[in-house]
Amino acid sequence: MYFIGKEPHIAERKQFLYTICTPSTSKAQQEYERMRVEREKRAIIEPKVLKGFRDFLPSMEIPKKAIVNKLEEHFSLYGFVPIDTPVLEYTEVLLGKGGGETDKQIFHFLDNGDRDVALRFDLTVPFARFLAQHQNELTFPFKRFHINKVWRGENPQKGRFREFTQCDFDIVGIDSAEADYEILAMMESSFAVMGVTDYTFCIAHRGLFNAFLDHLELSDKSVEILRIVDKLKKIGKEEVSTLLTSCTGTQDKALKILSYITVEDESEPFLTTLERLSTLAGGEREHTSRMQSIYGYLSNAGIQEHFTLDPSITRGLDYYTGIVYETFLTELPHFGSVCSGGRYNDLASLYTKEQLPGVGSSIGLDRLLAALEELKSPLIQKSSSADLIIFCLDDSLRSWYDELARSLRSEGIRVDVYLANKKMGAQFKYAEANHIPYGLSCGQEEKKEGKVTLKNLQTREMHQMITIEEAISTMKKELL
Amino acid sequence: MYFIGKEPHIAERKQFLYTICTPSTSKAQQEYERMRVEREKRAIIEPKVLKGFRDFLPSMEIPKKAIVNKLEEHFSLYGFVPIDTPVLEYTEVLLGKGGGETDKQIFHFLDNGDRDVALRFDLTVPFARFLAQHQNELTFPFKRFHINKVWRGENPQKGRFREFTQCDFDIVGIDSAEADYEILAMMESSFAVMGVTDYTFCIAHRGLFNAFLDHLELSDKSVEILRIVDKLKKIGKEEVSTLLTSCTGTQDKALKILSYITVEDESEPFLTTLERLSTLAGGEREHTSRMQSIYGYLSNAGIQEHFTLDPSITRGLDYYTGIVYETFLTELPHFGSVCSGGRYNDLASLYTKEQLPGVGSSIGLDRLLAALEELKSPLIQKSSSADLIIFCLDDSLRSWYDELARSLRSEGIRVDVYLANKKMGAQFKYAEANHIPYGLSCGQEEKKEGKVTLKNLQTREMHQMITIEEAISTMKKELL
Repeated sequence: MYFIGKEPHIAERKQFLYTICTPSTSKAQQEYERMRVEREKRAIIEPKVLKGFRDFLPSMEIPKKAIVNKLEEHFSLYGFVPIDTPVLEYTEVLLGKGGGETDKQIFHFLDNGDRDVALRFDLTVPFARFLAQHQNELTFPFKRFHINKVWRGENPQKGRFREFTQCDFDIVGIDSAEADYEILAMMESSFAVMGVTDYTFCIAHRGLFNAFLDHLELSDKSVEILRIVDKLKKIGKEEVSTLLTSCTGTQDKALKILSYITVEDESEPFLTTLERLSTLAGGEREHTSRMQSIYGYLSNAGIQEHFTLDPSITRGLDYYTGIVYETFLTELPHFGSVCSGGRYNDLASLYTKEQLPGVGSSIGLDRLLAALEELKSPLIQKSSSADLIIFCLDDSLRSWYDELARSLRSEGIRVDVYLANKKMGAQFKYAEANHIPYGLSCGQEEKKEGKVTLKNLQTREMHQMITIEEAISTMKKELL
Repeated sequence: MYFIGKEPHIAERKQFLYTICTPSTSKAQQEYERMRVEREKRAIIEPKVLKGFRDFLPSMEIPKKAIVNKLEEHFSLYGFVPIDTPVLEYTEVLLGKGGGETDKQIFHFLDNGDRDVALRFDLTVPFARFLAQHQNELTFPFKRFHINKVWRGENPQKGRFREFTQCDFDIVGIDSAEADYEILAMMESSFAVMGVTDYTFCIAHRGLFNAFLDHLELSDKSVEILRIVDKLKKIGKEEVSTLLTSCTGTQDKALKILSYITVEDESEPFLTTLERLSTLAGGEREHTSRMQSIYGYLSNAGIQEHFTLDPSITRGLDYYTGIVYETFLTELPHFGSVCSGGRYNDLASLYTKEQLPGVGSSIGLDRLLAALEELKSPLIQKSSSADLIIFCLDDSLRSWYDELARSLRSEGIRVDVYLANKKMGAQFKYAEANHIPYGLSCGQEEKKEGKVTLKNLQTREMHQMITIEEAISTMKKELL
């Protein structure tokens, strides 16, 4: 999906490149010619990346970085701090003693020291290891974020890659409605910061669902039931019903589960649905009251309309114990959840006997970026490499162009000095390809007078013979 | 070196953590107790990272991120754009057909599809592959930066790790003094931006050195000679002399090489040294004149005093063809070079028959961070997780605290709301451990009057019964 659109005039551009690269002195020309002939004789290695992996060209890397920076700045507004962990870990640390679903998907191998090592497949497991290892160096409640790549050997498909970026944020060391709410509030404001407006946070409570299964005397089958329910959005009601009947052994219980996980009336208020679920769970109170508190905080903040109580959300993973959530884009439901998580009350138990309760969320950044691109979001617009280009009118004025560039940069203006000594047509093409909005030129005449010419490359408006200070103020006015 | 200093009162803090995690309702208490007993019985996996790998706790990750952000912003002032490439590549793509030094150090393995894949060991080789693959989608001259991790299986030592971060910036598609100068100027200003002042950029010209070897009729032995000369700083003059004698077969030529690579008089001006080298190389002019131009630009920008002409710098790698440089910290020369690079005029030749000349530089970010830590740089100071903490005086006012937090955040103030319901002593300890400079408290009385109390946690100065607007302006004034 990315990087498909090649520019139209490839042959022309190759020529362009070739002439840029050709130096002017005859000795160097001979040397270049010798190297060219040598290259022609040599076999080359095909430049390609692995299946499911990809390059980020500036057109995607610039907006990706901008979004990451916005998110990081936003998380720090909430007192969250960044951490980082190694890309490679002991396989045993990542997978625990047993195998499971992830086992097949993991990139692992024996290193030179015969250690079984693996690339991390998420940021949660390394975080659990990190917490256990550094618990005496951290202050709790510990609020951290971690934005980085993870790897899974699954089959690539639209919006899914073998290498992708996750953005995790968690609060560890406290089990309270306030912590649950803070993660949800930060999710909501993060989406606002990213300019994403058309989405729904679907939330549920795993503890309440477990109480319901307990009430039906199905606790011993909960893992299997959770996995079946988790498939509802993919395989539909009927198939889930069949699977549940075969799992629970009775159609009656299957139907009861179906009626718990289905909200018939979409306009049913959050708290009414909650009371209904609580009744189905035999009048469960503790988790119900936690959910009421959370909803109270969301309403107090005026952001409750983004949150829907969706009892079919269970998150397949065993470690969740409280609130759980997934996030769907209204216009692209087939993209799946772009932000998921929940409360786990014993995450680091593989590595420590201390209990570390937590609540957290993970944004699938690459999937979200792919969605924003599909939605033609202004966030994924063509990005300029600079605010202004200084054209090379006169090669003997290079030192002067450098001085101009330095004074403009000291004002925070991003300045590209055109480095090649080419005709103006080529220079304009370069500026256009890089989406640079302003051009500045200065010849001998202008230099003598201490003046420059500023051109708005989009409107073609010219400001001739102005001072550099005037150029700066004109640009700043227009760029704002 | 990092993360050794554990806090003093571990037992106390474990108790602190335990009580935070203990919920208040009796049912939940029972559940926690059951889980605790279960944990006690279970064997745990030791939480540890691989040799040569490490975690970045917030105390290091915050300054690292701050430096990376500064550098990225700085590079974009020069019109450089970011790219990213996969962590894993085909081993053949990274290593070429042959082996060599890096071969032994590389992490490589067969993936599930029996492809020989490897973790990148630098950012230069993937960039060469990237250029060849995307040359028709890029505009030349192409100026890119890439800051990310690379992996080498070498033996870890002080300031050296198996996983480390490189920061590369290059200009590709042009061979000119202006491009060479732009990279050097950006190196100089980057060091200023990072607050590093005491260092020397040692530069030389590989083409000039080759012309010198040509003049001595030693071109056929240049690779071996380059590798010997590259060791000068490590093994000293005498051993280099012995090795050169054995390599060239004559002591006379060895001495000539030694006299080329040694600057006896450290006060010898740059251009005088250059003329001397040019003469030793049989009156070479082309590379000499390139170096003169570069030095002219550096002088014009007033930054020439940071650059020393050091003819012993050759950079062992074959692909350099022009200017080469290394950077040493005055107070920590044993850290080795923290920023190196040069001009290569046929970098992507493994992957394409097009010629792509370039010039670039690479900052060893982790090594530089370790150095800054050792130099007790203010950049590696204790970082605060937030500007202000809202203390929890009254648990029933949580919604109000959230409203205060939201209005403060909308002013750009980083606000942590204390989430646990603990005594003030514990809350102050938390604020101190997170280096939070301000505390805000509000009880029923204050809320009724629409007032708060702001406390500077360092000076202990209190501003009682002030409005939230007054609190904001007080903080902003003091924080600036």
